Amino acid sequence: MTIFSKIIKGEIPSYRIAENDRFYAFLDIFPLVKGHTLIVPKVETDKFFDVADDLLQEWLLFAKPIARAIEKAIPCNRVGLSVVGLEVPHAHMHLVPINSADDLNFTRSKLKLSPEEFRGIQESILAQL
Amino acid sequence: MTIFSKIIKGEIPSYRIAENDRFYAFLDIFPLVKGHTLIVPKVETDKFFDVADDLLQEWLLFAKPIARAIEKAIPCNRVGLSVVGLEVPHAHMHLVPINSADDLNFTRSKLKLSPEEFRGIQESILAQL
Repeated sequence: MTIFSKIIKGEIPSYRIAENDRFYAFLDIFPLVKGHTLIVPKVETDKFFDVADDLLQEWLLFAKPIARAIEKAIPCNRVGLSVVGLEVPHAHMHLVPINSADDLNFTRSKLKLSPEEFRGIQESILAQL
Repeated sequence: MTIFSKIIKGEIPSYRIAENDRFYAFLDIFPLVKGHTLIVPKVETDKFFDVADDLLQEWLLFAKPIARAIEKAIPCNRVGLSVVGLEVPHAHMHLVPINSADDLNFTRSKLKLSPEEFRGIQESILAQL
């Protein structure tokens, strides 16, 4: 079972942002910037483009209200997205509020936030959803 | 009219990869790596998450066979994707064959390829479509 499946099942705690029967969205605990959110389908598939068509079809519609809530909650030019997928074999999408291309640069060092900071970000995004 | 609309209309030449009535895919002429492809809806919208729901629903299904063709044509671990959108006010998605997160790092310098190299890449992707 991947670390994301453990998070979805609640075996590993997460800062949940949204959920339906097929997707789970939560704050990345190694964020590039504040508000960095992950969207993961509940079914495990390694490569993004091997994900079933019905999930690919739904994915961006599930992401849309979350992206808009992030954009309202976190000062930014817009919300960017990225699928890299070289570390966890469970397809996932990053939603990242960006002001420059460097905000989506996964080679840079990640932020270290306290639980209080994560909860504050979670609450500010949820308040916009 | 955005530069992408001019490309879609053929006013600016491009290395076309795929097209339907709603999307146009072509090689990025400032590629991060060989095979870097852009997908653009034919209707102009600045921000990705302001794109109409029916296009968002179709987008990843349009991308899937292209991503798979790139993955077969260009040696890579997988095809990553990114939406940044800070430069051209016409929502677009990058498909990039990646071996490391740095291959999706938009702050690094872009490749300079000759027309012959672009045509060779185009042909190798088209052969897999």
